[in-house]
Amino acid sequence: MKDVKIIEIKKSIFADNDAEAARIREKLKTEKTFLMNMMSSPGSGKTTTLLRTIKDIDGKIKIGVMEADIDSSVDAEAIAATGTRSIQIHTGGMCHLDAGMTEQGLKELGTEDLDLVVLENVGNLVCPAEFDTGACKNVAILSVPEGHDKPLKYPLMFEKCQALLINKIDVMPYFDFDMNKVIEFAKMRNSEIEIFPVSAKTGEGFNEWENWLLNEVNQWNNN
Amino acid sequence: MKDVKIIEIKKSIFADNDAEAARIREKLKTEKTFLMNMMSSPGSGKTTTLLRTIKDIDGKIKIGVMEADIDSSVDAEAIAATGTRSIQIHTGGMCHLDAGMTEQGLKELGTEDLDLVVLENVGNLVCPAEFDTGACKNVAILSVPEGHDKPLKYPLMFEKCQALLINKIDVMPYFDFDMNKVIEFAKMRNSEIEIFPVSAKTGEGFNEWENWLLNEVNQWNNN
Repeated sequence: MKDVKIIEIKKSIFADNDAEAARIREKLKTEKTFLMNMMSSPGSGKTTTLLRTIKDIDGKIKIGVMEADIDSSVDAEAIAATGTRSIQIHTGGMCHLDAGMTEQGLKELGTEDLDLVVLENVGNLVCPAEFDTGACKNVAILSVPEGHDKPLKYPLMFEKCQALLINKIDVMPYFDFDMNKVIEFAKMRNSEIEIFPVSAKTGEGFNEWENWLLNEVNQWNNN
Repeated sequence: MKDVKIIEIKKSIFADNDAEAARIREKLKTEKTFLMNMMSSPGSGKTTTLLRTIKDIDGKIKIGVMEADIDSSVDAEAIAATGTRSIQIHTGGMCHLDAGMTEQGLKELGTEDLDLVVLENVGNLVCPAEFDTGACKNVAILSVPEGHDKPLKYPLMFEKCQALLINKIDVMPYFDFDMNKVIEFAKMRNSEIEIFPVSAKTGEGFNEWENWLLNEVNQWNNN
C-alpha cells in the first residue's frame, strides 16, 4: 500500500470565513489553479468518481487531490495508487472543512504546478454546504440508492452546488428512483444547477461530466 | 395526504447537554416509555425500516414517532399514513438534535401513554453521534450501497450505538460489499454492538431486529 501524507488539520483561526475563502480564490486565480469542492453523503461514490475522472483526464491537465476524512486514509491511498499527487486531511472529528482548513491542505499539497485541485470533503450532506472553502466550483454527488427526495430534505447542498452528479445509475432497476423527480426537486433548489446522470462503475455519462469539468477548469485558468 | 404537526424547533437553552439528557431518561423511566434514537446517512432507509417495524410490532406495544428533518415533512406524512402518532421536527438547518431539542419534540408528541418513542434523527453519519438526546438506546443504519468501509471513516457513530442494522441486503449482488468486513470494522469500534443484516424492502432479518427491540423496550419499561 502506498504511503500517503496525512495532515491533522487544526481548527481555523479566521473569524471571517467568507473573506478567507475569497482570499484563497484570488491566490488560485493568480496561480491558474482551479479548486473543486466535491461533497456528498458517505458512500455516494466520491472517491470512485474521482478515480475514473482522473484516469480519463489526467493526460490533459495536471491534477492534485485532498481527501478529507474524520479518520482513516483509505481514500488517499486509493488516489495515490494512481500516481496522482494526494494528501489525506484528518479533521479530528469535525464534520466539514472551512476556508482556513482548506488552506492548510493546499499548502501541504503544493498547488503552483497544478491545473486542478480536488477537495473531497467529509461525507456529509448537511454541514459542508454551510462553509465556503475557497473552491471555484462546488459539485455534489447523490447516488440512486439514496432516493430522489433528497433535495427536498437537504436544501442547502443543492443550492450551493453548480453541478450535481446522479451516481450509480447502473443499479436504477433495483431501486424505486425517479430520475425526472430528482431533476425537478434539484432545480427547485437551484434552477442553474448542471445535472449529470453517471455510473462511476461502468463509466456511463462520464464524457458529459468531464467535458463540463475541463471547460470550467479552462475558463478559470485562462480568463 | 395526511396532515402532520410540524414543530419548528428552537436552539437549545441548556448549557449542559449530558445533564439534560439524563433528566429526560429519568422522566421516561418513570413514565415507562422507551426512547430510541435512530441515526444514519441520508437515504440509508430509516423511514422504510421504521414503517416495516411499526407494521410488525404495532399490536404488541404502543408507538409514537418523531421525524427530524432540516426541511420537508415527507417522512412524518408516511408514518402518519399508518395511523401511528407522529410529528415532524424541523431543525431550521441544524445538522443534529440534542437533548433540549428532543425534549421539545417529546412534549409536542405526548409520551405518557406510549411504550416506545422513535426519534428519527437528521440524516447525517457525523454530527448526531456527538449529542446525547436522552434516548435509552442508539441505533444506526448502514446500507449496503454505502460500502463496508464506513466504520473506519465515521468512528463515533459506531462507538455510540448499541445496535447496527445493515440494510438493503437484497441488493448485495449488485455491490462490492463485504459483510464480514463491515462486521469486523464495526466491532473494532464497539465490540458490544449488536448487528442485524436486514432488508426493509423484503423484510429479511426483521424478526431478529424486532425481537431485540421488543426485548429492550420490555426491559426498560418493566425493570
